[in-house]
Amino acid sequence: MWGGWLFCLAWVGDFGRAQSIFAPLRLHEASRPDPSRLLGLHAYRTCCITQKIDHFGFAENRTFKQRYLLADQHWKKGVGSILFYTGNEGDISWFANNTGFMWNVAEELGAILVFAEHRYYGESLPFGNKSYTDAKHLNYLTSEQALADFAILIQHLKNTIPGAQNTPVIAIGGSYGGMLAAWFRMKYPHIVIGALAASAPIWQFDSLVPCGSFYKIVTEDFRKGGLGCSETIRNSWAAIKRIAGTEKGLQWLSHTFHLCSPLKTTTDVINFKELLREAWIYLAMVDYPYEAAFLQPLPAWPVKVICKYLKNPKLPDRLLLQNIFQAVNIYYNYTGKASCLNLTQTATKSLGLRGWSYQACTEMVMPMCSDGINDMFEPQKWDLHSYSEDCFKTWGVRPRPYWIPTIYGGKNISAHSNIIFSNGGLDPWSGGGVTKNITDTLVTIMIPEGAHHLDLRANNPSDPISVLQARLLEVHYMKLWLQKQKRVKKCPK
Amino acid sequence: MWGGWLFCLAWVGDFGRAQSIFAPLRLHEASRPDPSRLLGLHAYRTCCITQKIDHFGFAENRTFKQRYLLADQHWKKGVGSILFYTGNEGDISWFANNTGFMWNVAEELGAILVFAEHRYYGESLPFGNKSYTDAKHLNYLTSEQALADFAILIQHLKNTIPGAQNTPVIAIGGSYGGMLAAWFRMKYPHIVIGALAASAPIWQFDSLVPCGSFYKIVTEDFRKGGLGCSETIRNSWAAIKRIAGTEKGLQWLSHTFHLCSPLKTTTDVINFKELLREAWIYLAMVDYPYEAAFLQPLPAWPVKVICKYLKNPKLPDRLLLQNIFQAVNIYYNYTGKASCLNLTQTATKSLGLRGWSYQACTEMVMPMCSDGINDMFEPQKWDLHSYSEDCFKTWGVRPRPYWIPTIYGGKNISAHSNIIFSNGGLDPWSGGGVTKNITDTLVTIMIPEGAHHLDLRANNPSDPISVLQARLLEVHYMKLWLQKQKRVKKCPK
Repeated sequence: MWGGWLFCLAWVGDFGRAQSIFAPLRLHEASRPDPSRLLGLHAYRTCCITQKIDHFGFAENRTFKQRYLLADQHWKKGVGSILFYTGNEGDISWFANNTGFMWNVAEELGAILVFAEHRYYGESLPFGNKSYTDAKHLNYLTSEQALADFAILIQHLKNTIPGAQNTPVIAIGGSYGGMLAAWFRMKYPHIVIGALAASAPIWQFDSLVPCGSFYKIVTEDFRKGGLGCSETIRNSWAAIKRIAGTEKGLQWLSHTFHLCSPLKTTTDVINFKELLREAWIYLAMVDYPYEAAFLQPLPAWPVKVICKYLKNPKLPDRLLLQNIFQAVNIYYNYTGKASCLNLTQTATKSLGLRGWSYQACTEMVMPMCSDGINDMFEPQKWDLHSYSEDCFKTWGVRPRPYWIPTIYGGKNISAHSNIIFSNGGLDPWSGGGVTKNITDTLVTIMIPEGAHHLDLRANNPSDPISVLQARLLEVHYMKLWLQKQKRVKKCPK
Repeated sequence: MWGGWLFCLAWVGDFGRAQSIFAPLRLHEASRPDPSRLLGLHAYRTCCITQKIDHFGFAENRTFKQRYLLADQHWKKGVGSILFYTGNEGDISWFANNTGFMWNVAEELGAILVFAEHRYYGESLPFGNKSYTDAKHLNYLTSEQALADFAILIQHLKNTIPGAQNTPVIAIGGSYGGMLAAWFRMKYPHIVIGALAASAPIWQFDSLVPCGSFYKIVTEDFRKGGLGCSETIRNSWAAIKRIAGTEKGLQWLSHTFHLCSPLKTTTDVINFKELLREAWIYLAMVDYPYEAAFLQPLPAWPVKVICKYLKNPKLPDRLLLQNIFQAVNIYYNYTGKASCLNLTQTATKSLGLRGWSYQACTEMVMPMCSDGINDMFEPQKWDLHSYSEDCFKTWGVRPRPYWIPTIYGGKNISAHSNIIFSNGGLDPWSGGGVTKNITDTLVTIMIPEGAHHLDLRANNPSDPISVLQARLLEVHYMKLWLQKQKRVKKCPK
């Protein structure tokens, strides 16, 4: 079962190998919303709002239904707030159920929770099942349109929920949703009084940060995961190359890795290596301190668990790769239910991935590279030209890598205010994140033991102190904004 | 000769009578750029930059040439600034030649002057002479696209003018250009350190201000212009109605007002009254203290001059209307060269007006109304429904009156900084402008004796003290921003 996706770009069939930034994130069935969680205190209503397909032009005047989830059982009318999740690239119910932080703080902040689905994802499809037909239909899949949807939705909520007219709104999001939260505050400060941007790599664009930082952090995670671990993975690529050179070797690989269909072509081998790379990247991203099923069901501290199999980088090829299989099997088959590993079951079947692939081919161009020295991956240069060619072949559009820094300010964002940028020290995306305070009101929170937006997840007994502190600080800042807002209302200038 | 236009909406043929907000502004030949002014200290180069037709979508990847004017003879490399005129609805050379303020302060601020033409105006036509063909071609005529053009242009200038990389930029504009300057600072604070928004009615939208304020201020100007003046104009409408009721009366009107072609139909009479209304509105807007030819060649304090003919509101119809002719003749024929007054020579021939008409039918919906009691005009309610119908008939689009407050914040703009809102007390647009300080860095400057952005005009011996003070303050604030920018650079946090 394939579902929601999170930062799951550019890996579409053959294309984007060198550009493959985010391998597909596979949402396991176990992480789908459990109806029992939606009862009582965690209950929400599913609602819809009519939105213009194009906020920025007038020739296209048609509308579509945007889905959002609403939970107002904790709302304290008159004193409370609205916590607004700026939905990212996937089914919004998945985000609602993986953002326990908002549910945990709802009562303390007397908050209405709103989870807004991002257009072109989940059920919010501007042209129904034709939404992904071609570049013309995809033309309205941009961050700007998504932010405008959010603005219209908030105005609608304030106008229609009795007593909510003057309720202050705080934007919250993680990953791409975190970028949207930050950008929302930057562009619509009249609509949200502040934003919590968790694990939001708003600087992973153009040449704002070195393209190698992402893979370097992944590698560092595995280096810390156990002696020999990252080295073993680094050596595995050459081992695969040597073994995949013969037909017998291909057979051996297919058998050893329990592949559902045997490796035959060069493309198969590329896809196979992609599968491995995907596993390492996502293990680093979801290296949470407890058993979780965010992307796949995984044990606590999965990188450490996996590294137990990868202690000896000097083994002969076949022994080394057998260990790699043991390790990767934890990622793809922790439950032990899969009878084989499916290479072709790629993410292209997921609307979420397709949407992100398009976004990565237009605005969300995040240069990535590896050199095999500072990281454990095969060397891959950032090649905008071939990236652009691939985008044009796949979607009929060309990326504009300069655009995000132009419209959202790049590193020059100090004129804005009331944004918390939180980052996990283990999270590869922290390399493109804001990790140093910019002003008194553009603040950062580092969670050294945190993976990808751990702070947005529900409280857990295994949480490291750093994430508990982060959540306390986040609530502290939100309360500050709310208090300031109240003061402004009581004593207008 | 018909040329540039300034706030010249919605009056297209029959349509928009009730909605006619801005009558066409007729740019007289005398106000066209005089080549001799462009020499020496006032010289500029005409340049072009390639811009994406659509910054906010990727299906349309074509480009067009945007024109801008560049004057760098006053630039002090290393310490100077860039003053950037955010071009509005007309030929940019006209604005360059009517914004003497920028030329006057260029040396003091060591500034490069840039005047950027607004897309779809002047020579900056995205689809050449097909730009106005239909709603599809007009789809990229929005304030957001114009701001994006400006952002791209500034980045281009900084990247290509040697030594300009770190030069701080200040946005300056008047009227709609003033709105663009303010909105530019709000949305792109990483690109401009501040903005001077002169006579920018950013609140003349939705129901942010009463729809009657505009005509009330026009009326007040004529009331102050001389005893009986506004009352005479108020009485003229009924007089016209009475006289236009007979064929003989129509002949008399046509003859008395020296019309080029005689009044015959009801539409003719409507157009005739429109011509009068247009004269009164623009006289109020350009009530400058010296002879000027901003829209039409006019004497100093033209409202006072005209009011000399309008002292007796109680005269019989024909005598009263003869006086009205004397008055309006000052506006349309101050030079005395016109042999007759042409009703059909409407502004629809001007690209500038057509563009503004489209903008007024999409984003720039500025509700206007008159009641004949608090103002001297015929009662006209604001009727969005018929406005929308007319827009659809004319352009195939429907207005979205909520959009400008949604995207630019309406009255809730206190999160922004470094914007000067200047307003003239005589200017009817001041009713929709920001006339009270919002924060320490969102400041207003009132010029009681000022008409429409008098402060942006060149120094003149007849300038009232209030406008001299305004210009001093404006330069003072700009220097503050520049100094702060320098401090930030020297001592980064």
